Amino acid sequence: MRWHLMKILLSVLSLLSLLFYSSPFFARASEQTPKKVIFMVMDGTNSDVITLSRWFKGHPLALDSILVGGVQTYSLRSGITDSAAAATAMSTSKKTVEDMIGMIPYMDREIGSIARPTSTILEAAKQKGMATGIVATSPIQHATPAAFSAHSNSRNDYDDIAEQQVYQDMDVVLGGGKMALLPKSTNPSSLPQHLSGIGSTLPLYRKDGENLIQILKKKGYQYIETKKQLNSVSSSKIWGTFATEDIAYEFDRKRLAPQQPSLAQMTKKAINVLSKDPNGFFLFIEGSKIDWAAHKNDPVGMISEVLSFDSAVKAALDFAKRDQNTLLIAVTDHGNSGLTMGNTNTNHSYYKMPVSKFIGPLKKAKFTLAGSISRLKKDQSNLKKIAQDYGLNPLSKQDYKRLKTAKNLEDEMANQLAKRANLGFTTKGHTGEDVFLYAYGPNKPTGLINNTEIPKIIASFLQVESFQKLNKLLFVDAADYYEQKGYLTKIDRSNKENPVFIAKKNNETIKYPANKNIKVFNENVVELDGITICNGNKFWISILEKQKGAGPTPSS
Amino acid sequence: MRWHLMKILLSVLSLLSLLFYSSPFFARASEQTPKKVIFMVMDGTNSDVITLSRWFKGHPLALDSILVGGVQTYSLRSGITDSAAAATAMSTSKKTVEDMIGMIPYMDREIGSIARPTSTILEAAKQKGMATGIVATSPIQHATPAAFSAHSNSRNDYDDIAEQQVYQDMDVVLGGGKMALLPKSTNPSSLPQHLSGIGSTLPLYRKDGENLIQILKKKGYQYIETKKQLNSVSSSKIWGTFATEDIAYEFDRKRLAPQQPSLAQMTKKAINVLSKDPNGFFLFIEGSKIDWAAHKNDPVGMISEVLSFDSAVKAALDFAKRDQNTLLIAVTDHGNSGLTMGNTNTNHSYYKMPVSKFIGPLKKAKFTLAGSISRLKKDQSNLKKIAQDYGLNPLSKQDYKRLKTAKNLEDEMANQLAKRANLGFTTKGHTGEDVFLYAYGPNKPTGLINNTEIPKIIASFLQVESFQKLNKLLFVDAADYYEQKGYLTKIDRSNKENPVFIAKKNNETIKYPANKNIKVFNENVVELDGITICNGNKFWISILEKQKGAGPTPSS
Repeated sequence: MRWHLMKILLSVLSLLSLLFYSSPFFARASEQTPKKVIFMVMDGTNSDVITLSRWFKGHPLALDSILVGGVQTYSLRSGITDSAAAATAMSTSKKTVEDMIGMIPYMDREIGSIARPTSTILEAAKQKGMATGIVATSPIQHATPAAFSAHSNSRNDYDDIAEQQVYQDMDVVLGGGKMALLPKSTNPSSLPQHLSGIGSTLPLYRKDGENLIQILKKKGYQYIETKKQLNSVSSSKIWGTFATEDIAYEFDRKRLAPQQPSLAQMTKKAINVLSKDPNGFFLFIEGSKIDWAAHKNDPVGMISEVLSFDSAVKAALDFAKRDQNTLLIAVTDHGNSGLTMGNTNTNHSYYKMPVSKFIGPLKKAKFTLAGSISRLKKDQSNLKKIAQDYGLNPLSKQDYKRLKTAKNLEDEMANQLAKRANLGFTTKGHTGEDVFLYAYGPNKPTGLINNTEIPKIIASFLQVESFQKLNKLLFVDAADYYEQKGYLTKIDRSNKENPVFIAKKNNETIKYPANKNIKVFNENVVELDGITICNGNKFWISILEKQKGAGPTPSS
Repeated sequence: MRWHLMKILLSVLSLLSLLFYSSPFFARASEQTPKKVIFMVMDGTNSDVITLSRWFKGHPLALDSILVGGVQTYSLRSGITDSAAAATAMSTSKKTVEDMIGMIPYMDREIGSIARPTSTILEAAKQKGMATGIVATSPIQHATPAAFSAHSNSRNDYDDIAEQQVYQDMDVVLGGGKMALLPKSTNPSSLPQHLSGIGSTLPLYRKDGENLIQILKKKGYQYIETKKQLNSVSSSKIWGTFATEDIAYEFDRKRLAPQQPSLAQMTKKAINVLSKDPNGFFLFIEGSKIDWAAHKNDPVGMISEVLSFDSAVKAALDFAKRDQNTLLIAVTDHGNSGLTMGNTNTNHSYYKMPVSKFIGPLKKAKFTLAGSISRLKKDQSNLKKIAQDYGLNPLSKQDYKRLKTAKNLEDEMANQLAKRANLGFTTKGHTGEDVFLYAYGPNKPTGLINNTEIPKIIASFLQVESFQKLNKLLFVDAADYYEQKGYLTKIDRSNKENPVFIAKKNNETIKYPANKNIKVFNENVVELDGITICNGNKFWISILEKQKGAGPTPSS
């Protein structure tokens, strides 16, 4: 009888557990649905810009519905981070110093203080067999997308970053940055030129003479350059480069670069393609140019890009809600410009400032500051019209004179608009405050977190290898590794832009060209799962070989 | 057998339900424990001040552990709120215009656009029989505490606000503001004078000649004025006035006003006293002077008061964690000053600014700006020492000269310190951005909310009367009410400061003096549950009479 009772009890318990697990109390995503992560960054966006953009729109933002907490953004050595260090923190879980892309400083016993690569959450997801993608409105080689998909001492090293991305074996790459894929001898002028000054001082054509677009095609990417092509593309491997440098500000795009897609359009396509992968996906998306507009103290550009980003958030959120096994996280990497609603004009009148006093002057702008300047004739003969189209309308004689005599026309235009719109700015650089955190879906973070916690939260959701463990497979000290096996090693710098690590023993020669995922064993090319990184002094190599139709295995 | 099985199943189920309800999965506060609410406001605090204060402290803040979302702060007619409108939104759930304390504009069919009182969450809790209290470092009549405990067209009308608070029948009132309790003929000089300029332009002695401290004592309050008295007080009804105007900044308090308690000490005492009430409590607490320091762009004062506020949060949070049926909400009412870590000096160097570059100069300050100025001799002979003690140390000849010749010494001192600490400011007024929301306990809000949602969330937790319903009991149009019953009514303004509403019919005369909770029926004084409000043109009266030993009942 006791045994009988026990049996009944056990069946009841198992029945109940079944019941509870399918009840709302225990609701959780089915393990059958593959896990997906969409991580979105609005670069350089303080909370005031969000508020101002909401007023400008006149309706709640998609972001408003998924606010969950805040993020500390400082870098390893600064109270105010740059985008490279912030993105590296959010991609690798490590604080690092400015300029570094997926790299952290460390003390080498021979060389001293140098930098080494460290695995990103995108690489971790890829190791797990998931589809991956990156989307940005900047050149795709720019700091934030770069820190998820490449490893470099310097964010300015577009050549290395671009090459690594090409060999990173992602499924979807959409953004600007065609210049970094081509040598100077080619003419990419069919695409829109950059519309913003920032970044344009960099040497953006490839110094090594390689044509990476040819490589992309060989690797099976469907390579596209227009919104139309994006709409009709059907491949599961897409590389879209829609601008020589950056994609136009959203407010300017329709008039100045109508062939370019919006961030929301790129986001939808990326999700559409990646979500077909049965193993789930990791997708990084950046609204890159809020930050650029903030550096210019251009409120029109800032609002343009927040609203553009928010439309992309809406697309991602719609998908996440349908899917129910997607973790969506959105965040800015740091504040920028110290924009406030309220300035010295409102010291004693702030409490009686209808929203129209802030928004009205901004609504008059037909173009962003960068868009306006791009339309200015060299002789500035159309300056008045340009200024008026930036919202400085009516333009008093005095204000026009100030523009004509300005040392820095951009600054003067931005200042005049800010004054009219009762906006304040503290700086043309980044700022150090905690920022808002937005998230939706399973495992979503809440409360105040450090930016380094973001990839850990994603890794925990995806149940991927620890970053530490992954580093021991993806970024092995090449000299150490081969010297311990009795090889002689050296770095061949005969091609300055493309150094090669060489290990020799008896009749074996093994070569690892930097920034690619291959090793050449005598004459045989072996594809690796992981990119070879060279920081000038050292090589780091992956010991995972790619096997067709199977997961990667450690090379012998 | 089937019946037998069913019986077993039922017992197992009931056993399990018991198990689950006491398990963490189903953890919820016992309904036996009375409900408590602690609502805390750090006035005028943008997110940068929080970040900077954390760096200054060198450890996480208590606030950091309870970040849950964000708040929209705008007022009825301005994109940037003042403290009166913000506090009214958070106490009554109604957006209002600047200066109004627990009042909202409305269209009277005879008079036109005027203002009417609307119930506060404190009044709602009181109606429910809960204990109530307010604590602030400003004069207790200042906008934010006032909007929870009084109703006035103007935040500057300390006389009316003070009188209403005295007759509001709260259990614990702790803060500054002795002047507004006394006529000019008395000499309250035994208490510290105010240390900050803001508010000091108001006529702070009572114009009506009343001594409200005597009234407080008659009403059974234990009236106290020092930290020592606060420590030893044993009554369940306490009124503590620790400054003629405001309580010293925390960084100055130990040296300049050691007899005053800290905000944390007041918080602990208030919780200690109120928590003895078997019906639970509603407690409002304000760190008032972050805002005041922000208006002066004084980072030292801002950090002083954020850390002081955070200590009070810690005390409240400790209690809430022990109690498990306390809803704690902490928030700022609006941004102020546009402080950023980073300014025009760091336009191009922000990414290499160790935290010490921000904190180091601030740590040199021995006093806040207000504390420093209070120590300055009239002939300014000790200016150098004062400046050095404010952190301007070493003080170059040039900087000293700038101080000596400054049109506004306070501004110059603050500017010099901000420059040294690489801090930017956009304004000396408030700002319009969304702010962080902090909460802990049952029913805690999350995500982005409007400030008007806060009292609704609290009301829902307390299960108190709807604000709308309460208005029909507490704030009835006196003329309407009595004229419908056939009375003749008038307003007696023979005592200018204390108008009286009079209703007459046959041999009945009923009088309602403004700002008190009494009506005089012929010669009999009847105590009301609710304050009589006069806005100049109209009277609003409570129709709830207080009954000793029982709840209030509507008067006939």
